[in-house]
Amino acid sequence: MVNEKLLKDIEFIVELDKMKSILRQTSLIGKEQREDDAQHSWHISVMAMILAEYSNEEIDLCKVIKMLLTHDLVELYAGDTFCYDKSANEDKREREVAAAEKICNMISDDKGREIRELWDEFEEMKTPEAIFAASMDRLQPMLNNYYNNGGTWRKYNVAQSDIYKRISPVKKSSDELWNFVENMLDDALQKGLIPKK
Amino acid sequence: MVNEKLLKDIEFIVELDKMKSILRQTSLIGKEQREDDAQHSWHISVMAMILAEYSNEEIDLCKVIKMLLTHDLVELYAGDTFCYDKSANEDKREREVAAAEKICNMISDDKGREIRELWDEFEEMKTPEAIFAASMDRLQPMLNNYYNNGGTWRKYNVAQSDIYKRISPVKKSSDELWNFVENMLDDALQKGLIPKK
Repeated sequence: MVNEKLLKDIEFIVELDKMKSILRQTSLIGKEQREDDAQHSWHISVMAMILAEYSNEEIDLCKVIKMLLTHDLVELYAGDTFCYDKSANEDKREREVAAAEKICNMISDDKGREIRELWDEFEEMKTPEAIFAASMDRLQPMLNNYYNNGGTWRKYNVAQSDIYKRISPVKKSSDELWNFVENMLDDALQKGLIPKK
Repeated sequence: MVNEKLLKDIEFIVELDKMKSILRQTSLIGKEQREDDAQHSWHISVMAMILAEYSNEEIDLCKVIKMLLTHDLVELYAGDTFCYDKSANEDKREREVAAAEKICNMISDDKGREIRELWDEFEEMKTPEAIFAASMDRLQPMLNNYYNNGGTWRKYNVAQSDIYKRISPVKKSSDELWNFVENMLDDALQKGLIPKK
């Protein structure tokens, strides 16, 4: 007999496979293929390992990585909401909270609680860890857009002010990364990768 | 001016995007689509978070996760080698060591060193962390095969003894997980998902 708790955990692990089929708007660099949630979550977790040294404040890198690995699990049931789609973002919070509750009931209490706490902290974006994690989550698709000739910025004619608002956590988390972002966005503007309005 | 070290790190992060296009033999559950290295690395990292409690020995979960996030980076330059392809495995080590050296030269010294050390520890499979990490790396494709009606076991007519050899790190890392694996493989045999030879 296999213990019930472990079987429940395995069932959840099998469910996680669906993250590989939840598509985001961002495309892979140099390709038409859209990125999925599993790929994105992996990329930003490794980014955190590489870029942690540039954080202004001391951060618990392990917590940042756990946050990034799990922050998009709500999309299993709430789907991906494009960050620049204002109407879809109106009920995003409500849909995601319901999904978070569902997920946390799917695995054993202590682990469901940990994932929920990580997600709540990420969403509130108040701790240095959550701000750094948000910076990774936002910088990665911008890199992909920059290297994809404007990507979703051009495809959806995103306003410059919305891009700066979206990337603003980087300004709070790291002076060095912010300097890089400003340079990249200036260059993107000059090259016409960001619509001028 | 953005500092040179950060620019080198960003260049590496952009290179990481290619992991999303390195295909493994395993398919996503219920789909024809083959899994890629980024998806796989994400899945096993979250699995480690969920299953760490079943480890026989105390493990440093943060190290396990970092190991799992980066263990397949060598495939950026060495490609994916199917675990049951004996001839391709003959020069795997040589190809991967060359790739590891290339990767570690691509990012700043200290971080290249950390990634190399994590990879060496994973490959040597001696520490409790490396054995647990290997267990995640091997359990996940077995789950996908089990839920995919035999998947690559049937497609490539893999010998039962090779499957047991491949999954053997689980036996060393966790009595509870090993109990689960034995049950799953017994069931797979009974259902004809593993070729009887």
